[in-house]
Amino acid sequence: MVATELRTDPITGRTVAIDLGPFRRRDDFDLQPARLDDPPAQCPFCEGREAQAGPEILAWREGGPANLPGWSVRVVPNRNSMLRIEGRTDVRSDGLLESRDGLGAHEVIIETPIHDQPLHTLDADRLWRVLWAWRTRIHDLKRDSRFSSIVIFKNHGRSSGARLDHSHSQLTAFPLIPPALADKLLGASRHMSINGTCVFCGLLSQELTDRRRMISDQGAVLAIAPYASRVPFETWLMPRDHSARFEEATDATLHALASTFKSVMARIDWALERPAYNCVLHTAPLSGEADAAFHWHLEIIPRVTRYSGLEWGSGVHRNPVSPEEAAEVLRGRSEG
Amino acid sequence: MVATELRTDPITGRTVAIDLGPFRRRDDFDLQPARLDDPPAQCPFCEGREAQAGPEILAWREGGPANLPGWSVRVVPNRNSMLRIEGRTDVRSDGLLESRDGLGAHEVIIETPIHDQPLHTLDADRLWRVLWAWRTRIHDLKRDSRFSSIVIFKNHGRSSGARLDHSHSQLTAFPLIPPALADKLLGASRHMSINGTCVFCGLLSQELTDRRRMISDQGAVLAIAPYASRVPFETWLMPRDHSARFEEATDATLHALASTFKSVMARIDWALERPAYNCVLHTAPLSGEADAAFHWHLEIIPRVTRYSGLEWGSGVHRNPVSPEEAAEVLRGRSEG
Repeated sequence: MVATELRTDPITGRTVAIDLGPFRRRDDFDLQPARLDDPPAQCPFCEGREAQAGPEILAWREGGPANLPGWSVRVVPNRNSMLRIEGRTDVRSDGLLESRDGLGAHEVIIETPIHDQPLHTLDADRLWRVLWAWRTRIHDLKRDSRFSSIVIFKNHGRSSGARLDHSHSQLTAFPLIPPALADKLLGASRHMSINGTCVFCGLLSQELTDRRRMISDQGAVLAIAPYASRVPFETWLMPRDHSARFEEATDATLHALASTFKSVMARIDWALERPAYNCVLHTAPLSGEADAAFHWHLEIIPRVTRYSGLEWGSGVHRNPVSPEEAAEVLRGRSEG
Repeated sequence: MVATELRTDPITGRTVAIDLGPFRRRDDFDLQPARLDDPPAQCPFCEGREAQAGPEILAWREGGPANLPGWSVRVVPNRNSMLRIEGRTDVRSDGLLESRDGLGAHEVIIETPIHDQPLHTLDADRLWRVLWAWRTRIHDLKRDSRFSSIVIFKNHGRSSGARLDHSHSQLTAFPLIPPALADKLLGASRHMSINGTCVFCGLLSQELTDRRRMISDQGAVLAIAPYASRVPFETWLMPRDHSARFEEATDATLHALASTFKSVMARIDWALERPAYNCVLHTAPLSGEADAAFHWHLEIIPRVTRYSGLEWGSGVHRNPVSPEEAAEVLRGRSEG
């Protein structure tokens, strides 16, 4: 019987339950095939079906007209959008209840023209163009003063919530700070107000000394297994030096992010048999108020465990693989 | 295209995105069969295999010895427990990192001796015995001063995280207040400190007047579709009169809860084709400090939508069915 430790997330203060003990691929892992096997002949994101995906907001093209083939990355409005550019900004209230329009932006970044090409298998330059598209879209959207914050995420594979196999990510611009980002911002500001420092910088410094949860410390972007990892092989990629906003990352930093992402994902694919996964980009709110306290990072969340009644009811994620074990497994694997 | 509204949860303040518009069973609902089809011949929870399930902590028996057949409800330790009775209470700290032993209790309530009998299909008296077991176990565990709070939850069906078809729930006693309960307690105390009243009582009063989200208002236990429902057909069952702690519910209240649960679940089974679901019981912390502000309730969480990158990254659940639509569908269905 394996002992379980309760750990406090050093950013949010939330509790996670970590099963200690050596890693083994668990027979209760959800290792159903990540692919949905939707028919490529009907995929709206494939090259040649630009009209189906919608008019492009941004694209990487080597010349040639918009909305036709010849692109390597393409950004379009989400056809099933949750947030829309048109809407009112006021909050309506009725007794104890409050609501507002789903004002914002909800865009899809089509990461490759080819149907069967997961993001992390793109070569590093192609992957860099996806990050360039993320950065460019944030720069553009931050000029709209109705938006408070932007979250970019990715669903890869059935268990992640993906509805299409064709590799894509999604950008959401909110008229407020959504709760998952607010939880981190609150913790980071609390730390700043008490210590006068960025809690993420403090953590990185501790992890660089400790080494047990370090996955990769090559170059400008580090990969760590977070101390309070919620799922097996959760990995955070973060710039080594303080930087609150992803959109201010240099080309060189994005190249470092692309190559670290590729190498970490290749190892996770090996350890968990090409799992479904989510990615989440957390960057500081657009107002700039958290620029000293916050530090952008990209979360990789493999989806081999279920979100069960325990997580719904207690908010405590039970993680059957400790981050120390995950980091050791991932460090031990040479790249590719 | 359906408009989306951002709603603030009146208890926690967290944002939820609700798609407005008429309900239709969505083709993107995850309606895979709830059953796992694990072989009954090996089920450790079936009558006659008491030794496999473990020594009983509590059982409802019409006479006869412990740990043998003849029971209708049986409580045993979780064989894969996250929290254990043995352990230290101190918090260990290492720089920014804090951990503690997984001290607590983790029990399984086997809800029926029969393999293929979902909780909500038990007759009301049998279902009452399950609630009696919950109440009895909380009463017993609250005598251990090392525990701060208890959460009971249930996984029914594959998508809910269940690993066995045989109907059971789980009790977790924590040495702290877990985050999902802490979020509600914080909101409830804030409301109490400003208004001097229980926010849940205020909500019930508003919903009883408004009617649009009322599913059932018969008797001592009400069923509502919460204003900021996170998933389609989310339903909360709550005592009509203020009561912070489930364990102080009378026999009559538990009878009302059993019959409301049966009737609501029968309607959800009809509307969502026998979905997988989770249940969560939230009751006030054992210390009693929140007894004026908190109000116990049982959440029913059908699992027909995926927990995707949006939920991980923003904490905003996107719900494709408004609670007003869900309540109308459920009200319109006669019981059974």
